[in-house]
Amino acid sequence: MHEELRVRVLEMNLSIEAEGLVFQTWGNASAIDREQGVIAIKPSGVAYADLTADSIVVVDLEGRHVYGKLAPSVDLPTHLMIYRGFHEVGAVVHAHSHFATVFAQARRPIPCLGTTHADYFNGEIPLIPAPDHDEITLGYERAIGDLIVRHFINRDPLECPAALCAGHGPFIWGRTPRQAVENAVVLEELAAMAFHTMLLNPAAPVLENHLLNKHFLRKHGKDAYYGQKG
Amino acid sequence: MHEELRVRVLEMNLSIEAEGLVFQTWGNASAIDREQGVIAIKPSGVAYADLTADSIVVVDLEGRHVYGKLAPSVDLPTHLMIYRGFHEVGAVVHAHSHFATVFAQARRPIPCLGTTHADYFNGEIPLIPAPDHDEITLGYERAIGDLIVRHFINRDPLECPAALCAGHGPFIWGRTPRQAVENAVVLEELAAMAFHTMLLNPAAPVLENHLLNKHFLRKHGKDAYYGQKG
Amino acid sequence: MHEELRVRVLEMNLSIEAEGLVFQTWGNASAIDREQGVIAIKPSGVAYADLTADSIVVVDLEGRHVYGKLAPSVDLPTHLMIYRGFHEVGAVVHAHSHFATVFAQARRPIPCLGTTHADYFNGEIPLIPAPDHDEITLGYERAIGDLIVRHFINRDPLECPAALCAGHGPFIWGRTPRQAVENAVVLEELAAMAFHTMLLNPAAPVLENHLLNKHFLRKHGKDAYYGQKG
Amino acid sequence: MHEELRVRVLEMNLSIEAEGLVFQTWGNASAIDREQGVIAIKPSGVAYADLTADSIVVVDLEGRHVYGKLAPSVDLPTHLMIYRGFHEVGAVVHAHSHFATVFAQARRPIPCLGTTHADYFNGEIPLIPAPDHDEITLGYERAIGDLIVRHFINRDPLECPAALCAGHGPFIWGRTPRQAVENAVVLEELAAMAFHTMLLNPAAPVLENHLLNKHFLRKHGKDAYYGQKG
Repeated sequence: MHEELRVRVLEMNLSIEAEGLVFQTWGNASAIDREQGVIAIKPSGVAYADLTADSIVVVDLEGRHVYGKLAPSVDLPTHLMIYRGFHEVGAVVHAHSHFATVFAQARRPIPCLGTTHADYFNGEIPLIPAPDHDEITLGYERAIGDLIVRHFINRDPLECPAALCAGHGPFIWGRTPRQAVENAVVLEELAAMAFHTMLLNPAAPVLENHLLNKHFLRKHGKDAYYGQKG
Repeated sequence: MHEELRVRVLEMNLSIEAEGLVFQTWGNASAIDREQGVIAIKPSGVAYADLTADSIVVVDLEGRHVYGKLAPSVDLPTHLMIYRGFHEVGAVVHAHSHFATVFAQARRPIPCLGTTHADYFNGEIPLIPAPDHDEITLGYERAIGDLIVRHFINRDPLECPAALCAGHGPFIWGRTPRQAVENAVVLEELAAMAFHTMLLNPAAPVLENHLLNKHFLRKHGKDAYYGQKG
Repeated sequence: MHEELRVRVLEMNLSIEAEGLVFQTWGNASAIDREQGVIAIKPSGVAYADLTADSIVVVDLEGRHVYGKLAPSVDLPTHLMIYRGFHEVGAVVHAHSHFATVFAQARRPIPCLGTTHADYFNGEIPLIPAPDHDEITLGYERAIGDLIVRHFINRDPLECPAALCAGHGPFIWGRTPRQAVENAVVLEELAAMAFHTMLLNPAAPVLENHLLNKHFLRKHGKDAYYGQKG
Repeated sequence: MHEELRVRVLEMNLSIEAEGLVFQTWGNASAIDREQGVIAIKPSGVAYADLTADSIVVVDLEGRHVYGKLAPSVDLPTHLMIYRGFHEVGAVVHAHSHFATVFAQARRPIPCLGTTHADYFNGEIPLIPAPDHDEITLGYERAIGDLIVRHFINRDPLECPAALCAGHGPFIWGRTPRQAVENAVVLEELAAMAFHTMLLNPAAPVLENHLLNKHFLRKHGKDAYYGQKG
């Protein structure tokens, strides 16, 4: 049941492990089939080397069990909130990648310091505040997703497909599993470059607006000319 | 004699080498069989590539020879003090991992700056002072172990299974060989993340108490819900 | 058509990927055949693993199509300006190497801090200003090449075969494809060493002139004595 | 002729390349046969992958040709001065290892910040001043060796088997080829640890004298007890 979706989620999880974005059993990836209204996600606490398509858990948008014998990732409620809040998102990654997590721990957004950043993210990658004591009571992992979604009320989540949760780490998304994984890989390299840039020159300016627009639009605008046609 | 214990200690030593936690012949791992009252440990100054189950040395809790032709690690007296002071500890690792050693050399504890830290260590990883001149006279390696144990008089050593010895490096432990090695691997990643976090933001706050408790308890409390049941 | 040139450019692109100087599909390398008046360059947005000699695009010095079914790198106009401005240059690399890009983002030239730098670059590696809003209107990628060439009006581009474009990244060149790739590899190591040197000692002095001259000339002067004769 | 010595020097050069201590064709290693009065050294500018025992050059203590068709490393005069000044040294390495070179470029000695340093070097690893303009005139590479030897007039070079040449990089030595290579490997790890320690805590204290003595002597003193007997 939902085997194609589970295989794709298996591949996502194996990719983020192969790309060095997770550590031990930490991190997890999921994807949604919006027509069927189901989400597939990594099981909780299972080593990446032990994952199989059959071990991937399937739930509905309320988190109710659909398929699988294992318990889903404890971060499932965060994924659910993202799918419910961002209607064009098809896949979500929760990474534990080193420098993205360092920014989250340092409680700093990642400023747009170069054209590489502008090729993927239309401006700063935001820092989402940690849930407070009361928000935790109502469901910790759900509160995190809720805070992410609320942050993007006035911003297109596909123009900035990642957020840093304060003291915790990054969540990354995309239209497809492939894009979500690519965005997660790029986020880590951008975080590492921003880290070293800020150390070398704490007063490094953010990229000028005309360069930010030029780079984001030559890859993503309606007149995009990067890459091959069709 | 004590072959199962020696094989497990061989595997621990090979694991810490494979995980990049040691360098040259530095570092060592041991485990205890509390029923038999014996401890197996790496021999001194032997390259990891040359280790065999037969080269692992076995001693009793006083350090007296039980099995093996080689001299045990010079750090044996530190291991002994830890086993005698922490009764639930089943295995000990002395790593020379890069960033954990950097904190020890910088004479800084590792503050809890994020949820990843809180998943494994219930708060700050302490800095243990170096033995003074008189303490060295009575036995340097034994004095180090004694200082570690004394630090934990009012703290459960299994809620913080590592300590940094000032100017020296980390000692890590766990209920089982597998947990001690996992804690050593995690310690190094936490140290590296804390290092970069403190460089990016020297005023980075420690994790809020309600988040520290939430994360430590969702993995280790009686109502833990991380991972699979049974 | 122009197969030898395309094979050489394929090899350049595979080399910069193997040397870790690019990331994802970012970066590109080209070479010129000055007798034939043609330039071969990586196609836009194609993964390095998918490159073949046949996928390499050939254009003339005005950028007009000569060979190939794919669109050339969007950075082609920058390469063209460099070939037109620097008449002894035979090959160009646009890398996304980590520390060279960090200097570009930090808006800092790379000072000559050691003899390793002096072995390859006769002094500081310059920071080229970003194109302003008006310059972009006339063609963004062409403006970058124009700014690079104008910077070298009073400096031999073969005595400093690289430049950092502010907020963007490095362009590197050489007499031959092999030298351009070697210069790109060396630039990244020099950038990494300069980065760490400036962190360790922000007041680190630039290399004394008599040492800079000694090292640059023992490898590149008419009385060079480094390496083997003939 | 002198084949055993050449094979040993070949192995040294391959080892420093395999250990990541050199880059491109940079760096070189040599060894001396004091009975025969000859020194074997890497040829100049030859890639490590192309080295053979036959390509290793042999000279006498005055640098006069004894064996080989290639020109010796340009750093030969530095090696010669070290062999002539330090009579117990049997092998010399000139590395371009990253963090040791960073200290040389930052014009900083490497302070003894931990017990790992004290296990190999009895105190600070010194910074040797760069030759001035006049010293260069008399022979640049010879002047470097002379400055190193003069620094150790009141210090046993085997208690501190390395020196950093300002703006240049490290020279490392040992009684045997194996020890020289081991010292070079250890130097780089010590430099990296010292670098990160000084960034984390610029006021990190040097290791207390009683700990420095304890560690250096438990490995190197007449009552050494580290490792196995005989």
